[in-house]
Amino acid sequence: MPQKVRIALDAMGGDVGAAVVVPGAAISLNRYPDTEFVLVGNRALIEEQLAKHPALKAASRIIHTEVAVSMEDKPSQALRRGRKTSSMWLAIDAVKKGEADVAVSAGNTGALMAMARFHLHMLEGIDRPAIAGLWPTVRGDSVVLDLGATIGGDARHLVALAIMGSAMARVLLNIERPTVGLLNIGTEEIKGHEEIREAGERLRAMAALNYVGFVEGDGIGGGAADVVVTEGFSGNIALKAAEGTARQISDFLRQAIAQSWLSKIGYLFAKSAFRSLRDKLDPKKANGGVLLGLRGVVVKSHGGTDAEGFAYAVDWGYEMVRYDLLTKINQMLNREGGGIVPDPSTPEAVS
Amino acid sequence: MPQKVRIALDAMGGDVGAAVVVPGAAISLNRYPDTEFVLVGNRALIEEQLAKHPALKAASRIIHTEVAVSMEDKPSQALRRGRKTSSMWLAIDAVKKGEADVAVSAGNTGALMAMARFHLHMLEGIDRPAIAGLWPTVRGDSVVLDLGATIGGDARHLVALAIMGSAMARVLLNIERPTVGLLNIGTEEIKGHEEIREAGERLRAMAALNYVGFVEGDGIGGGAADVVVTEGFSGNIALKAAEGTARQISDFLRQAIAQSWLSKIGYLFAKSAFRSLRDKLDPKKANGGVLLGLRGVVVKSHGGTDAEGFAYAVDWGYEMVRYDLLTKINQMLNREGGGIVPDPSTPEAVS
Repeated sequence: MPQKVRIALDAMGGDVGAAVVVPGAAISLNRYPDTEFVLVGNRALIEEQLAKHPALKAASRIIHTEVAVSMEDKPSQALRRGRKTSSMWLAIDAVKKGEADVAVSAGNTGALMAMARFHLHMLEGIDRPAIAGLWPTVRGDSVVLDLGATIGGDARHLVALAIMGSAMARVLLNIERPTVGLLNIGTEEIKGHEEIREAGERLRAMAALNYVGFVEGDGIGGGAADVVVTEGFSGNIALKAAEGTARQISDFLRQAIAQSWLSKIGYLFAKSAFRSLRDKLDPKKANGGVLLGLRGVVVKSHGGTDAEGFAYAVDWGYEMVRYDLLTKINQMLNREGGGIVPDPSTPEAVS
Repeated sequence: MPQKVRIALDAMGGDVGAAVVVPGAAISLNRYPDTEFVLVGNRALIEEQLAKHPALKAASRIIHTEVAVSMEDKPSQALRRGRKTSSMWLAIDAVKKGEADVAVSAGNTGALMAMARFHLHMLEGIDRPAIAGLWPTVRGDSVVLDLGATIGGDARHLVALAIMGSAMARVLLNIERPTVGLLNIGTEEIKGHEEIREAGERLRAMAALNYVGFVEGDGIGGGAADVVVTEGFSGNIALKAAEGTARQISDFLRQAIAQSWLSKIGYLFAKSAFRSLRDKLDPKKANGGVLLGLRGVVVKSHGGTDAEGFAYAVDWGYEMVRYDLLTKINQMLNREGGGIVPDPSTPEAVS
């Protein structure tokens, strides 16, 4: 039997904290019983929740701290106040020390990124972190990155994102040779950033990647590629524009149905259709993002999620460890590193 | 009685050409009878359509040409092949010569932009063109720009977009002091391009604009501002991501309903709710975009639209002329030009 997956949880993270994190972990443990947990935070609050989940209690140990990063802290404040003491830091620290394989937090994204980068450091050949998420498409999920960790970036950065996203799709989506596309705005000659064109040329030359070309904004949900790569500004804008549209449509549909008795009756008949729409759009299932580029696996759950949503983030953490995300990324970096690591014989590498 | 609005139509533009453009013009003429049309294209094809629309025929004259820009032409090809001869060029030329007040085309966007810029030139103080569109929000439409005309841009460019978008919102949405927001990705310290922050500071100082701060991707549809400003890459990505999501959801809902008899019966009862959702999402109503920054008004309709959709683009053209878009833009540029026009006393202005 293989080793257990050891997951460190920031039990104070998110809008609610332990009352979401602990029951969320219990749901995930039920799906993946070969898991052990390190729960970091206020012992009394954690134990109060653990009392309701004896199986989880048996699979967990607690690291006590009274310090928690708030959702409002700026990254620099969080580092100043919470370094070495906060539940977020100590969860990352468990990964750093090799006591856990992955850290999961529903806390403040900027703080989590800053602490993870500061404490775990970047992988060889990767300059800057990325956040990757799963995007529901017409033909299953796709990996989209960067969702906002790093603004801008040259061709080399985009190639690194493609490699890391590919590894993540292999692990989470179980696709052996995931297709990779670069987000762009059409194929006319005057369009497209120079760095995107250059990245496209480099990706086309990489045998280990299944590069399929440019993907437009509507191609993400259209399933044009298993992995869609873009720098963090446009990735974040795309994600939020899509989320906002989905929310707008479901709000509007609810209002329209509430407006007449006939529609309400119709809703009862068509309930299964609406339920399957709701399941499809359920943000819980695509909850959060994976911080990529670090010497360790860190998962960010949405701060406002409930236990069920948090459980999906824990599942991601489990799967990425079980199927060796970091090893796969490192293998591809070594094999295809020429595309992203500066050639040691060139002067730039010395500087 | 005020002067008639004179609209030049590229009758060969779009996937279909005259069979969409002419009936579209007829629909718009019915709404705005104080319009005259210049129809540019193949006389035989136009007259065949005009025969079915006697009122439009009475309000139109034809400029004949056999040359049409294709939807596949690159901008440079279109300029080389279609300059001075194509229906697209001649429609713009009618504006240039003062024979029409606005040109409307459903043709190739890149070609239209290149020709309009080449022939009409930019407004004083504006370096680069923009495409602005209407975005349906939870509280009515907002103006969003740039949707893809110009990639990147400094603070000065973003301020110019804010001024032009504000004028467009006054004219098309009839809002006296439209709120203006800058698209960004959150307010944490590490986030946001330098040029966006600088543009925000400049906009805050402009009394003629009602600047409300940064807007995130989901704030566009959330109605966070009447005018949302961003450079063309992210604007295009946001628009397409939102359009793709809306299409994805309505496709999915249709499939889900078709899956069971109960759902189909429910659909019949809830028909009015579904119809009002369809109206709300109807891309025809937000059809196309306005090319801003030029010494003349040019409207781009979607190439794949039908007569009803094209009529909305013609309506926009009418309203922007009737309510003096260009005058309003020029007034604001003169009043607030300090924010965007280089100070003549500085050396840069000499270069």
